[in-house]
Amino acid sequence: MNKRIVILGAGYGGMMTATRLQKMLNYNEAEVTLVNKHDYHYLTTWLHEPAAGTLDAERCQIEIESVIDTNRINFVKGTAESIDPNAKSVKLTDGQTLEYDYLVVGLGADPETFGIQGLKEYALGIRSINSVRLIKEHIEYMFAKYRSEPDKLEYLTIIVGGAGFTGIEFVGELGDRIPELCNQFDIDPSLVKIYSIEAAPTALPGFDPELVEYAMNILERKGVTFKINTPIKECNPDGVILATGEEIKAGTIVWTGGVRGNAIVENSGFETMRGRVKVDDFLRAPGHDNVFILGDCALIINEETNRPYPPTAQIAMQQGQTCAENLTSLIRGGELKKFTPEIKGTVASLGKGEAMGIVGSKKIYGSTASVMKKVIDNRYLYLLGGMGLLLKKSKL
Amino acid sequence: MNKRIVILGAGYGGMMTATRLQKMLNYNEAEVTLVNKHDYHYLTTWLHEPAAGTLDAERCQIEIESVIDTNRINFVKGTAESIDPNAKSVKLTDGQTLEYDYLVVGLGADPETFGIQGLKEYALGIRSINSVRLIKEHIEYMFAKYRSEPDKLEYLTIIVGGAGFTGIEFVGELGDRIPELCNQFDIDPSLVKIYSIEAAPTALPGFDPELVEYAMNILERKGVTFKINTPIKECNPDGVILATGEEIKAGTIVWTGGVRGNAIVENSGFETMRGRVKVDDFLRAPGHDNVFILGDCALIINEETNRPYPPTAQIAMQQGQTCAENLTSLIRGGELKKFTPEIKGTVASLGKGEAMGIVGSKKIYGSTASVMKKVIDNRYLYLLGGMGLLLKKSKL
Repeated sequence: MNKRIVILGAGYGGMMTATRLQKMLNYNEAEVTLVNKHDYHYLTTWLHEPAAGTLDAERCQIEIESVIDTNRINFVKGTAESIDPNAKSVKLTDGQTLEYDYLVVGLGADPETFGIQGLKEYALGIRSINSVRLIKEHIEYMFAKYRSEPDKLEYLTIIVGGAGFTGIEFVGELGDRIPELCNQFDIDPSLVKIYSIEAAPTALPGFDPELVEYAMNILERKGVTFKINTPIKECNPDGVILATGEEIKAGTIVWTGGVRGNAIVENSGFETMRGRVKVDDFLRAPGHDNVFILGDCALIINEETNRPYPPTAQIAMQQGQTCAENLTSLIRGGELKKFTPEIKGTVASLGKGEAMGIVGSKKIYGSTASVMKKVIDNRYLYLLGGMGLLLKKSKL
Repeated sequence: MNKRIVILGAGYGGMMTATRLQKMLNYNEAEVTLVNKHDYHYLTTWLHEPAAGTLDAERCQIEIESVIDTNRINFVKGTAESIDPNAKSVKLTDGQTLEYDYLVVGLGADPETFGIQGLKEYALGIRSINSVRLIKEHIEYMFAKYRSEPDKLEYLTIIVGGAGFTGIEFVGELGDRIPELCNQFDIDPSLVKIYSIEAAPTALPGFDPELVEYAMNILERKGVTFKINTPIKECNPDGVILATGEEIKAGTIVWTGGVRGNAIVENSGFETMRGRVKVDDFLRAPGHDNVFILGDCALIINEETNRPYPPTAQIAMQQGQTCAENLTSLIRGGELKKFTPEIKGTVASLGKGEAMGIVGSKKIYGSTASVMKKVIDNRYLYLLGGMGLLLKKSKL
């Protein structure tokens, strides 16, 4: 009987594994099944744009069957509920059970709340197509409500918790969107407040300080107020309370302050740190040689710094590629290949025409960085779906 | 000293009075002041469209200074608080007092709640640019929320209280918008419910029964569920409770069930019925020969039926015209002219390409009626602002 490969999650890691497997494996060499909650993949790294309303959410959606050949890979629309690594099976929420010989876990992240009270209830998250549509509509609804209750200035305040990569990219987009929104709703733009609140001693922890300063200057000019080194103590229906005791009233709170691995992994008995499994050199869960873990659910230590790599799309994609190669080897009886991330660069967008980051070891800024950001985004489309997908979804 | 004419409100009546006066009066023949809350006039009869999201709200806005010659008419952006007919003065909410020799009251309507509990708190209204923007954003927000909480089907239910003219036109637009919204939010259209609820024994009370049936058939095909002869007893955060005891859960409640005259008129000591002043043949408030009352604040009896005319834009415009002529006569010492409404026709839109109504004494339906509706809308633009305004705002 053919070996059964089950891939959980059609994020960057899962999709890359699936598309590579469909190229590398011959017909009937293995039975590959991809399981995903939606029938589309989404471009997580773009989601700050539809959240702010500067890009249509549909632009970030890719129909799975437009890049997966369903003659070679079974697609199951379903949500994983639990993994039983001993029985080698996965249970879906609809009651279905899938058995596997090899499992690839690319289930993505859950928000990390750091125990902040009220965060789950009152803060929105940049997590999925549905969650960013909600953010966009929430902000617009607040602006519309303000026009009906003009004494409620707080409706025009947006708090973004976390000034990491996503938080910074999001406030950059907000800076572009607000003038447009104010025009649409006849609102004086000076009444709108955007707060970027970060507990760490710097915005964009881990970034070169020169780049951080560049980013903050650009964003402050776009109307963003930073509160760095300022933990949020509590979220409530009216806004947030900071650790300093200061209260900021706001109609919208968006939390970008961090993620942990999907709870399913931890709940299925894998040993985790913040929901992540410290995988071996071949991306396998310790003690489970047939379970590969990718992306947000995997913990990999950067030996140079002795700290974990941040879970990025770039690394997840590389993991998917290695994982597909190793699965092919396992089926054909070849050697396994070690995974080593190769960080080509990191570019953070700061809104239209503005970005900053590092490519190779070179710092880049402004329009150069903005063009590079688009090159990175478009390169992924090409890797995933070739020229066809690039033409359909590319950013110009 | 020149006579001072103050016009309160830039609705259909006030705007028509002002634009006619600016044509009829010579320079410095009178001092005319137009007072309005916003610096724009809006096309109240179009508001069901932006409320549903089928037309941009801006399309219904006309900058007052684009049709009023401010060399001839003073424009004051302000909100009337009270009228003192004995002192012949008007107080604005900003503390300003305006004295007049002649006053024109065109302050529009307040919603009539018929004592329904919770209506003010939980139902939205089709009243103004700001209120319809809120309805549009509210509906979209509910659709976005549903995607995050897919067990809350009630988020996809819209209750429209009142199946009069506005309620019917609004559900017609909703019928067009829902498929588009469902597409945008990836929602199965069959999950969306639109209820049109009317206390009277028929939808569109006062309309020809054949036309009512035509309208209901069209709207039912667009997915509208009618509950006629069914008063609403209570609105609450979850939906409505009907007089029958039936509860309908809904994310959105819009009340179109009737209006009364602006409370300022009643509170200023004028004798009113449902907020309306029963004006004399010359549109004057009884006992105040220098106060003219137009539009929603005026009550005029149709002698044929012995019932009040419904307060329509058509009548308000005709009143504005007569009022301007009479004010000119008063200033020049001429005769006053009696006001008699001349009902040219009434056409209710039922969404894109569909309408029905009466023109002259002829019933019209379908695309003929839909074209006629646009002719009526465009004719007003021409009357108000000539060819320039028609070109800028006309419906094609």
